[in-house]
Amino acid sequence: MKTLSLTSPLDMHLHFREGDMLKLVAPLTAAHFAGGVIMPNLVPPVDNQERLLAYREEIRASVPDFEPYMTLFFRGYTESELAAAKPHILGIKLYPQGATTNSDAGVASLKEAERVMEMMQDMEIPLLVHGEDPDQFVMDREAGFLPTYAELAQKFPKLQITMEHITTAAATALLDHHENLRATVTVQHLICTLDDVAGGLLNPHLFCKPILKRPEDREALVNAALNHPKLMFGSDSAPHPIDKKECCGCAAGCFTAPIALPLLAELFDKHDQLDALQAFVSERAQALYGVRPPATEVQLEASPFEVPARYGDVVPLYAGQSLAWRVAAVL
Amino acid sequence: MKTLSLTSPLDMHLHFREGDMLKLVAPLTAAHFAGGVIMPNLVPPVDNQERLLAYREEIRASVPDFEPYMTLFFRGYTESELAAAKPHILGIKLYPQGATTNSDAGVASLKEAERVMEMMQDMEIPLLVHGEDPDQFVMDREAGFLPTYAELAQKFPKLQITMEHITTAAATALLDHHENLRATVTVQHLICTLDDVAGGLLNPHLFCKPILKRPEDREALVNAALNHPKLMFGSDSAPHPIDKKECCGCAAGCFTAPIALPLLAELFDKHDQLDALQAFVSERAQALYGVRPPATEVQLEASPFEVPARYGDVVPLYAGQSLAWRVAAVL
Repeated sequence: MKTLSLTSPLDMHLHFREGDMLKLVAPLTAAHFAGGVIMPNLVPPVDNQERLLAYREEIRASVPDFEPYMTLFFRGYTESELAAAKPHILGIKLYPQGATTNSDAGVASLKEAERVMEMMQDMEIPLLVHGEDPDQFVMDREAGFLPTYAELAQKFPKLQITMEHITTAAATALLDHHENLRATVTVQHLICTLDDVAGGLLNPHLFCKPILKRPEDREALVNAALNHPKLMFGSDSAPHPIDKKECCGCAAGCFTAPIALPLLAELFDKHDQLDALQAFVSERAQALYGVRPPATEVQLEASPFEVPARYGDVVPLYAGQSLAWRVAAVL
Repeated sequence: MKTLSLTSPLDMHLHFREGDMLKLVAPLTAAHFAGGVIMPNLVPPVDNQERLLAYREEIRASVPDFEPYMTLFFRGYTESELAAAKPHILGIKLYPQGATTNSDAGVASLKEAERVMEMMQDMEIPLLVHGEDPDQFVMDREAGFLPTYAELAQKFPKLQITMEHITTAAATALLDHHENLRATVTVQHLICTLDDVAGGLLNPHLFCKPILKRPEDREALVNAALNHPKLMFGSDSAPHPIDKKECCGCAAGCFTAPIALPLLAELFDKHDQLDALQAFVSERAQALYGVRPPATEVQLEASPFEVPARYGDVVPLYAGQSLAWRVAAVL
């Protein structure tokens, strides 16, 4: 039986929510990952020092061995606010207003945001971006934002900018044009396309933002995941209770925390590049962000894993189905 | 208050199902439409004379004043089968295998279907086609079928071919290249795009096959609906019980029978072409198919219509919302 051992896997884009939902999902991530980047789009958003530290405390209380790399929700911060936050955060996450779940408080004008970006560049605080133009057609929203990425990368050449959850071949190509751009990609964008959401029956559990794209986009993302030093794994695992998914008006987000590593092992194995998974799920992130996660070892093996129908009231992607790989042990 | 009177409106693409569902939905269509083309994709399909006549009887028993233009499900019919059916049908509907709901018995090889098409051409039986290539990416399936339409139109120049529920600018353009091609279009493809299905929250009630397309496709369809003599209204109204729509793995189909005329009046009014609606919902179909529907008069007015939350266990499109036009009277 094929096996694979991973050291300190990291999930560089993660939604833990708060309260009972956090208590449900944070341990499912911490069971496999040594650390991860925690998204700040709570209601209200994590956009001040008090809320930041309280949120980190809530996470630590739930998963003490997991390293939460905290982020602030982008707004018009002062220099002293940034200075106070810097030791406690990995970066600041920018959402265009209305782009995704809980982004109503997002940035309406990038022009006005530049003052804060200038300070972030000077203070070496990375910028994480949900790169979609919400005014465009749903399949074009990421493509419509790429010129903005290019503009920001040129205007702030020392600002480290992460294109979060990229979904297109064009975004992948942009990594090579600007030294200070890096990116994350989810597992569902590596293995699925819009066909899997809406090609047969409609699958609300695969409905996420940015929406899944075309086969040629998926191929480009897979090639970059296998090889590109600036593409990191970020699950964007986003739990919603079942009544917000199997309904009329279902929320965007795929819950993949417990299945991400098995799915990635299967994908990398299929491309005969199992050895490259360590870089994708940990080393590239360590190099790009300079983080040093807790030392853990995750052992995977190519034996079937039956995905539970539910975790609490959250339905995972591939609920009730059998995956080809499983997590055998965590040391 | 603006008003509009329509004579003998026709719905040239319609799903009545059978049994209790038929009893629920057929009267909702018959309340507004003088007649309509009944799709044959039941389980098992309507593909023999006995089932055809029994199905027509079931429809007549439910809606005696409504003219059901019957269709057969395409298969390898003999000449005598076609001759026996001809007086009772408007045409024969071809589904590529696996293209949509209940299409498992559809055509796997168009090559083998040509013998029947040859006979249909000789006997002047129109061919109605679900024009999608199910092996392609969901957004490309209609575009992928257009060369087949062109090939059939050239190979059988006397065969009247209806491109059912077209969704793209390219399909609209094809109408001008082949004299024997005509088409239907649904109301949802005239007023919505994929943005309305998946641009915000996911709306399963707008999920249909062929899937809603891009803004530029919608625009081309609207222009053709307003002006093109070969584009007819066909709602493709397709009821599913709520537990097949608000769930995991929701079925494709929008239930629009009771709201189609109000939505069309609003659309045509917005384009200052209310007068063109009569052609779109009746005259073009009469001219293209040579049908003479029962004489009815439907009066619409520009006053709000609250769409019911449900009709039985079927959720209509825009359930609970207010439309700008209503059907005021049917004479």
